[in-house]
Amino acid sequence: MIRLNNNFNKLQASYLFVEIARRVNEHAAANPERKLIKLGIGDVTRPLPPSIIKAFHEGVDEQAEASSFRGYGPEQGYAFLREAIAEADFTSRGCPITADDIFVSDGAKCDTGNFQELFAEDITIAVPDPVYPVYVDTNVMAGRTGEAKNGRYEGLVYIEGTEENGFVPSPADLPETGADLVYLCFPNNPTGATATRAQLGEWVDWALAQGSIILFDAAYEAFITNPELPKSIYEIPGADKCAVEFRSFSKTAGFTGTRCAFTVVPGAIEIDGVKLRDMWNRRHSTKFNGVSYPVQKAAAAVYSPEGKKETRELINYYLGNAKIISEAMTEIGFQIWGGENSPYVWVKTGEDSWETFDKLLKGADVVVTPGSGFGNMGEGFIRISAFNDRENVLEAIKRIVKALG
Amino acid sequence: MIRLNNNFNKLQASYLFVEIARRVNEHAAANPERKLIKLGIGDVTRPLPPSIIKAFHEGVDEQAEASSFRGYGPEQGYAFLREAIAEADFTSRGCPITADDIFVSDGAKCDTGNFQELFAEDITIAVPDPVYPVYVDTNVMAGRTGEAKNGRYEGLVYIEGTEENGFVPSPADLPETGADLVYLCFPNNPTGATATRAQLGEWVDWALAQGSIILFDAAYEAFITNPELPKSIYEIPGADKCAVEFRSFSKTAGFTGTRCAFTVVPGAIEIDGVKLRDMWNRRHSTKFNGVSYPVQKAAAAVYSPEGKKETRELINYYLGNAKIISEAMTEIGFQIWGGENSPYVWVKTGEDSWETFDKLLKGADVVVTPGSGFGNMGEGFIRISAFNDRENVLEAIKRIVKALG
Repeated sequence: MIRLNNNFNKLQASYLFVEIARRVNEHAAANPERKLIKLGIGDVTRPLPPSIIKAFHEGVDEQAEASSFRGYGPEQGYAFLREAIAEADFTSRGCPITADDIFVSDGAKCDTGNFQELFAEDITIAVPDPVYPVYVDTNVMAGRTGEAKNGRYEGLVYIEGTEENGFVPSPADLPETGADLVYLCFPNNPTGATATRAQLGEWVDWALAQGSIILFDAAYEAFITNPELPKSIYEIPGADKCAVEFRSFSKTAGFTGTRCAFTVVPGAIEIDGVKLRDMWNRRHSTKFNGVSYPVQKAAAAVYSPEGKKETRELINYYLGNAKIISEAMTEIGFQIWGGENSPYVWVKTGEDSWETFDKLLKGADVVVTPGSGFGNMGEGFIRISAFNDRENVLEAIKRIVKALG
Repeated sequence: MIRLNNNFNKLQASYLFVEIARRVNEHAAANPERKLIKLGIGDVTRPLPPSIIKAFHEGVDEQAEASSFRGYGPEQGYAFLREAIAEADFTSRGCPITADDIFVSDGAKCDTGNFQELFAEDITIAVPDPVYPVYVDTNVMAGRTGEAKNGRYEGLVYIEGTEENGFVPSPADLPETGADLVYLCFPNNPTGATATRAQLGEWVDWALAQGSIILFDAAYEAFITNPELPKSIYEIPGADKCAVEFRSFSKTAGFTGTRCAFTVVPGAIEIDGVKLRDMWNRRHSTKFNGVSYPVQKAAAAVYSPEGKKETRELINYYLGNAKIISEAMTEIGFQIWGGENSPYVWVKTGEDSWETFDKLLKGADVVVTPGSGFGNMGEGFIRISAFNDRENVLEAIKRIVKALG
């Protein structure tokens, strides 16, 4: 008689966004006449820019002709895309990253979820709180935790983001257990907090001293407009020896439904004489078959002069939304984080998060994300996403102000 | 100090197709003037059919307009595709499968590799020999085996495909240990063997009696033209209570570079009161973010009247190649399997497989796959793939006959 992976039983309720979708669908079904505005899940709404659409079509056309047809591509991604990424996102910013370190994939969520497979089962893992739930749930499934108690899993180390540290915890916030593997995310999901060069430097120095690895989620780097803030962890000396970075075209270029991302595993990371990059390559080529060729063509267009300009406009559009949300929330007296250099606004409402969520869903027909869904430290907060069309944001803000102000 | 997943050390050499690519690249670099013909890796060469290209373009165009733009889709795939699949591939053939049982993904390789995550670590796993290496390597990485000795992993159960059983092993070929989880693949990769209704029936009856689960890889079902042969394991009564089926648009419609596949997890499979479908749904929605929308549009076009006709022509084209290869190999005195209802021809050369591989690579500039790369029972065989353009197949066969005949 076959038996199941019982670690799945430890998972708490459903994946946050699935639970939100359930409540939203229930509300929408009961109130079909009302216009719901979603500022919850961080999903883009603006169409793909023209130069990207053009390249996407060209890729499709190539698949229509025998002379240009492409079957299986390199699992790691086509050289034209890996080289464009390495140059534009890293070399040009002084980061010691080459095309060989880039692994193109179909999503940063998948990669952040899968990367833990490379490590021993009994290492100590630290996650931020509040946290993007995928880091936690995938380690639970892999058997790296005990049961959940009071919103936290036994065996996991939580690094607390607080008002005091501005939601940018430092290695000093680690408990005495330390950690072998640390997940960090800046600009942060959900708090919108950004880390300075000095703050990231502390983490890199700590990791190098401890022989620890940092999994750095930079899915929102495109939203950084302040030139003082690092966009990549590899802007910090030594990071190429201790950090893996996850990037995505989802938010940068509106690819949430088109699917393309990449992970950077520098060749300089060695653990016990083994190159981590070789291990990821083995994992990636065994369990993955590369990203759709026309999608990779489209992604490469993000790095063309027109693509850069158009995606910059896209980002500025959402940043404009974030500013509107931030100002409105501040005006009605809430303290906020993020909203600058980030598409998320983290609002301290001071009441039960799901209560605020339900209040806004039922009373204002607006969907936000309850902070407690991201961990205990998110209780009393909501996350408002700037990903929507301007008119929807303006209307939603009007309704939110009325409901909460 | 962080530690690695040492199970990766147990993996033997590199993934078969990576090793082949290495030798091929070396040969090509040394002999740039010669024209290499690849009948090795099962990669299609014909362009995507017109109706699929049309739908693909339409999907891209929808991403260009705010009114039709799609961001994150359902992780399980869009209803339009899941419903088309359920109807055309299952309901119309009398299989008790609904759209809810279908999970669209970016590849059958990924899904066959990932599915083992749902089961306990210490279950007994049986794989065929010869075997598609992904079934084995992903279980090795997950720590379900001991070390490799003489081409086999300790702790894995091997079901031997032999000339005697025509490379269709039955439950009687299982050792006394039995098995909780069995991987089966028909039409088989690499041998091209197909299983009859009676043969699959034996496996289903066995699994139901033992409380075991069958992971059924049907990636090549489109090549079945004999109406007596089952295309899906769900044509066997009771299979919906013990079998998971993997399908792919890669070989059916030329999607190897476009990426779309699906996995069927029937709602009727319950283990210890848990629906396996719910578990896969949790896994899929946590670690995957859905397939590119335009790609799903393209995949749905496979089920349109034109799409069906065009993909049928595509399959017939490759089946014509398989016939040419089969006849030529038979003519020069080799015994063969497959080549009918399958794109693969399994040829008994009787000598060391890598020796034949190198002989054909260096002497005929033709790439085949060495049988021993699929397991001990493949020693003395080579796999010739029918995936290439007709003129290349004709030329390759001429060269192979000269080199081996």
